[in-house]
Amino acid sequence: MLIPHDKNIRYLFEPRSVAVIGASADKGKIGNTVIWNVIQNGYKGRIFAINPKGGEIEGLRAYKRILDVNEEIDVAVLTIPAKFVVESVKECAAKRVKYGVVITSGFSEIGNAAEERKMVEIANQNGMRILGPNILGIFSAECSLNLTFVSVPIPCGNLGIVTQSGALGLAMIGQATVGNIGLSAIVSVGNKSDVDEADLLEYLISHDRTKVVLMYMEGVRGGERLVGTLRRAAKVKPVVIIKSGRSRRGAMAAASHTGSLAGSDAVFADIIRQSGGLRAESMREAFEWCKFLANNPLPSGENTVVITNGGGAGVLATDACEKYDVKMYDDLEHLKTIFSPAVPEFGSTKNPIDLTGQARADDYTEAFHAALTDPGIHSVVVVMCESPLFTGEGLNRAVEGNYEQFKKAGKPIIFSLLGGKLLADYVRAARERNIPIYEDVCEAVSSLGAMEAFKRYKEEPEDETADVDLDVKAIEEIVEEARKDGRSFLSSHEGQQVMKITGIPIPSSLRATTIEGAIKGASAIGYPVVMKIVSGDILHKSDAGGIALDLQNDREVIDAYEAIMRRCREHVPNAVIEGVEISEMVKPGTEMIVGARIDPSFGPTVMVGLGGIYVEVMKDVSFRALPLDRKEILAMIKEIHSYPLLMGVRGEKTRDINALVDVVIKLGAVIRKCRGISDIEINPLVVYEQGLGVRAVDVRIMLSKNIER
Amino acid sequence: MLIPHDKNIRYLFEPRSVAVIGASADKGKIGNTVIWNVIQNGYKGRIFAINPKGGEIEGLRAYKRILDVNEEIDVAVLTIPAKFVVESVKECAAKRVKYGVVITSGFSEIGNAAEERKMVEIANQNGMRILGPNILGIFSAECSLNLTFVSVPIPCGNLGIVTQSGALGLAMIGQATVGNIGLSAIVSVGNKSDVDEADLLEYLISHDRTKVVLMYMEGVRGGERLVGTLRRAAKVKPVVIIKSGRSRRGAMAAASHTGSLAGSDAVFADIIRQSGGLRAESMREAFEWCKFLANNPLPSGENTVVITNGGGAGVLATDACEKYDVKMYDDLEHLKTIFSPAVPEFGSTKNPIDLTGQARADDYTEAFHAALTDPGIHSVVVVMCESPLFTGEGLNRAVEGNYEQFKKAGKPIIFSLLGGKLLADYVRAARERNIPIYEDVCEAVSSLGAMEAFKRYKEEPEDETADVDLDVKAIEEIVEEARKDGRSFLSSHEGQQVMKITGIPIPSSLRATTIEGAIKGASAIGYPVVMKIVSGDILHKSDAGGIALDLQNDREVIDAYEAIMRRCREHVPNAVIEGVEISEMVKPGTEMIVGARIDPSFGPTVMVGLGGIYVEVMKDVSFRALPLDRKEILAMIKEIHSYPLLMGVRGEKTRDINALVDVVIKLGAVIRKCRGISDIEINPLVVYEQGLGVRAVDVRIMLSKNIER
Repeated sequence: MLIPHDKNIRYLFEPRSVAVIGASADKGKIGNTVIWNVIQNGYKGRIFAINPKGGEIEGLRAYKRILDVNEEIDVAVLTIPAKFVVESVKECAAKRVKYGVVITSGFSEIGNAAEERKMVEIANQNGMRILGPNILGIFSAECSLNLTFVSVPIPCGNLGIVTQSGALGLAMIGQATVGNIGLSAIVSVGNKSDVDEADLLEYLISHDRTKVVLMYMEGVRGGERLVGTLRRAAKVKPVVIIKSGRSRRGAMAAASHTGSLAGSDAVFADIIRQSGGLRAESMREAFEWCKFLANNPLPSGENTVVITNGGGAGVLATDACEKYDVKMYDDLEHLKTIFSPAVPEFGSTKNPIDLTGQARADDYTEAFHAALTDPGIHSVVVVMCESPLFTGEGLNRAVEGNYEQFKKAGKPIIFSLLGGKLLADYVRAARERNIPIYEDVCEAVSSLGAMEAFKRYKEEPEDETADVDLDVKAIEEIVEEARKDGRSFLSSHEGQQVMKITGIPIPSSLRATTIEGAIKGASAIGYPVVMKIVSGDILHKSDAGGIALDLQNDREVIDAYEAIMRRCREHVPNAVIEGVEISEMVKPGTEMIVGARIDPSFGPTVMVGLGGIYVEVMKDVSFRALPLDRKEILAMIKEIHSYPLLMGVRGEKTRDINALVDVVIKLGAVIRKCRGISDIEINPLVVYEQGLGVRAVDVRIMLSKNIER
Repeated sequence: MLIPHDKNIRYLFEPRSVAVIGASADKGKIGNTVIWNVIQNGYKGRIFAINPKGGEIEGLRAYKRILDVNEEIDVAVLTIPAKFVVESVKECAAKRVKYGVVITSGFSEIGNAAEERKMVEIANQNGMRILGPNILGIFSAECSLNLTFVSVPIPCGNLGIVTQSGALGLAMIGQATVGNIGLSAIVSVGNKSDVDEADLLEYLISHDRTKVVLMYMEGVRGGERLVGTLRRAAKVKPVVIIKSGRSRRGAMAAASHTGSLAGSDAVFADIIRQSGGLRAESMREAFEWCKFLANNPLPSGENTVVITNGGGAGVLATDACEKYDVKMYDDLEHLKTIFSPAVPEFGSTKNPIDLTGQARADDYTEAFHAALTDPGIHSVVVVMCESPLFTGEGLNRAVEGNYEQFKKAGKPIIFSLLGGKLLADYVRAARERNIPIYEDVCEAVSSLGAMEAFKRYKEEPEDETADVDLDVKAIEEIVEEARKDGRSFLSSHEGQQVMKITGIPIPSSLRATTIEGAIKGASAIGYPVVMKIVSGDILHKSDAGGIALDLQNDREVIDAYEAIMRRCREHVPNAVIEGVEISEMVKPGTEMIVGARIDPSFGPTVMVGLGGIYVEVMKDVSFRALPLDRKEILAMIKEIHSYPLLMGVRGEKTRDINALVDVVIKLGAVIRKCRGISDIEINPLVVYEQGLGVRAVDVRIMLSKNIER
């Protein structure tokens, strides 16, 4: 019986008592570092040292077994060799410990998955949960708990870190210290045998002291729940994410590292964005974002001005704003009105506001004041270039004096200083005082971009989940039939039946097993028609030459029938051929692809994109995790590059985007509700003009290996 | 008469004498700073101060006019107000000064283009050339010349900088100083009224002391020559380029800044890459590249290994290698053989080489030694994460000791250190000693990626320019006819004639002006046929409903004729309609677009991409500047995302890529050789299977406003 995680995850972060199993008096041993850290960090709860030898460790009496302890224990940390872990977990479970924090490595990450599974089973059966194995431990500022083997002090603050890699966790603690960013918590999840990112996020969402969350991930498991939790988290506080293994080789390295399979990066990227996660390109960028987000106010709108003393640098800033999706305010009249008094002759009040090389540091203040007091301007990017007149004099006044005012007024302002040693030294010093100041324009704007993205996600109203009624039973019966045949996919005919049940329009069609039947069928449907091979052994019909298009009359039907049979027999000699399918020749329209599948990382997902032969070549598709509302489905459709095709190019009318959205909703409902289906793909789905609907021309449905998925 | 720039650009960088016009004794005036800089920097040539008041300036006799000086003057720098500049240039010209360096601003950048033109005309007529106006000046280490108004010392070294922005030039001097990068030269080109980047590159190519060139550009003018010079430069030394104005808004800001029109960023990106330029994303990245390239050996091959003590960090490095096109060595057997002795149990000899968290700094040395001595490994990316065992002890030995050995062996090695203050402090200190060491993995790999890109370009063999014989006269006659009609484009029929002359296959077609003629023509060509409106007033035929496809018989020809006439009259009421064109219905194939045009920045360029209706939507095209060799044309074709369509997808055969290359060569020849044509576009160019050639279905040819282009 598993205790619902939302009920008790607080015990992990705020335990009333901890036991260190493998506590040691030997300096240099992990078991010593951990108990030393717990004590030194000033943890206020009860601490129990466990060591089979007993004795005294760091001033505490050591118990030989955890069962010897007479009090309740919320968290037990295990720092003992791998071979003793299962036995120890058994004892913890018997003791009703709530969380086992298994620092020890040597489990699934080196192929030893069985032991890991066993440990989790024993724990879960007793209502105990496992963090790890193969981790750094957990640090939680809320109760001054440092249950890690980190040998440096961990600074307290408002950044919560969840990391899949322990080594990077250590590096991150170092970088946080250097960057003057304190942590509210850091937890390493390692092999994620039980407790995962979603569980930890659950705590961090409601933990007030945590202002920003940073997650380092390699692979995703149980992504369905992660998406849900992430979406809730991202509405409340920024969640910055670094996902490694984005390259194909990187994914290989990640897979061999923690034994988790890194999913496709395209899917990850789309779904994390959908869930409001802010994905950073590098560790450096991630920390810059976290620091900026933790220390600066959210703007009340998106209008940004760039104030510069160098035209070229202003252009660099403008480029960066476009790259990082920061909206440059462009009401030129209004800009002129408010900035004219601050801008000299030959300067510019267009955005960027160019104070020219004549500007001294103090000359910025007037422009800042205009931006500060004008309610139409919501954030400011400042660029300062060293010049004969801008040397560093008055710099502190211009930067820090004004920064405080902006902060008070709830307007983010971010500085970049381009120049020599004097300016670089000032940047370094001011950064230590948590001023958002950079040597590079791109870095500055990148942080503001992350803030704007958070704001947009946070403020986006949530709609009702799009759903449809579905005759689930009818579909599952079709699946069951195919399964009885030992097939791993539905036939084209069965796929069409599923479309009918789901209410997705398909071309009219019928089957024939003889030339005569084909001719009769074609007449019944009406020329022109399409002919396709029907064979459970031939999946890629066009590769096998099993398709003939635009057959205009009986003669052509006869020729096509013969040609298809010959080609398919050549291509797949042993194929069992059931006949041909004769269908109406579908009128041309915009060819899209719509898919739904159970993603191994994220569970039920949908995909939409440019279809036909272009799908594999252009890879112009976007993904989302389910459930979705209509607005988000529209957003995913707008994301694809070929969206203008749906809007109508070259005098064509707008396509029936509503009908396309309906298909996405319907396939989503099938994949979520019908057991036994792993993948559905319609390609092409021909989309006609507004009001004329769609036609699902080719449907492929794959079955799950396991009926329960 | 203009002196050929390659003959005398050395006089600008290594003048034997300079005159400072507007030299001043008043501290704080630019005219004082400049002459003070010349003297203080230890310039060895003759220095003349020019000031209408005469007297003495900084210990030199001041001449009232330059004409009063009795010796030859190579360079005159002007620091006088804009209104006096033209007069002064006249005197310089009379004095046979070779280069006028016009620091003064207030010309085309604020709309005063006439004065600027006048100044250049006067100079050029007298064999004098102008650098500027609106610039910082020029610094040239070769002769210790500091002819700028920069008030800080400029460090000497081997980086040559050319910058369009003076303000950024100042900032770059500062950043070079902070980054411990010395300059061989820095020149600001400002409004580029005469001397431009290509002229300056000409000097820097052959200047041995300059190891790396850094260029900051906003707009490109005379890009044709720049491309040629850049290609030669990039074969000899790395040329790092920052181009701002890449965003649409940035381009606006750039245009208002220096009066130059920033071209399309897509064109710029492709052509700079074609020319071997290394384009950096940000100023920071550019300086990192320059420093790394100037101080480190080129590898002898592309096999790179990553050596790490953290799996997660190794994955980050692997991702970065893919992003920056650094080739991870992947002969697993060989890796195992050479790295096994250095890698502990549970580590990995796969690339990344994972020494695990058990590795101390000294443990890296064994792995380094293996990489150093193995001839199959050419460069190394080192990742070091802080850990309980990796704290900083032995760090200097591991990093700097090994660095020197790799440098001697001609193998680049680059370090990234992830951790706390101790490591960060070490990074800072080692950077000052020019060790390539970073806090972020991406930054480290980015620099190595730039080096690999330089190496690839440098070593790429050059082929002969692809060209064809062309009846230029016949094409120019057609152009002349159209011009006489007052048209700015060729008719479809004329376009087809040009195709015939050029030897590009087109569908057979003929014209008709009546329904009867259309029917007759259709029979002559053979059904099915296509019908298109012929009207000089209707450019976008399909928008106007002026196209009918797949007409199967006389009846359909009649209907189409009537419908086309009606729709076109509705769409463009006053259009003069010349009739219709009846053409063979082209068999389906892969629809591409091929274009050639006189780009306002880069001169004659060609474009190839996915054609048909997708061209505007997918923008899947690539550009090159002419001339080109066949190999480069193939490379541009391979660059487009839809290249797999040409290779054949889903059982289709490879397309006739050679025929496609021929079309690019032929259009390139037309645009280069035939006066009066500004743009040619074939869309679609239908490409058939290997050996079956192409068919140019629709051709549009625009004429230049000016017959000379």
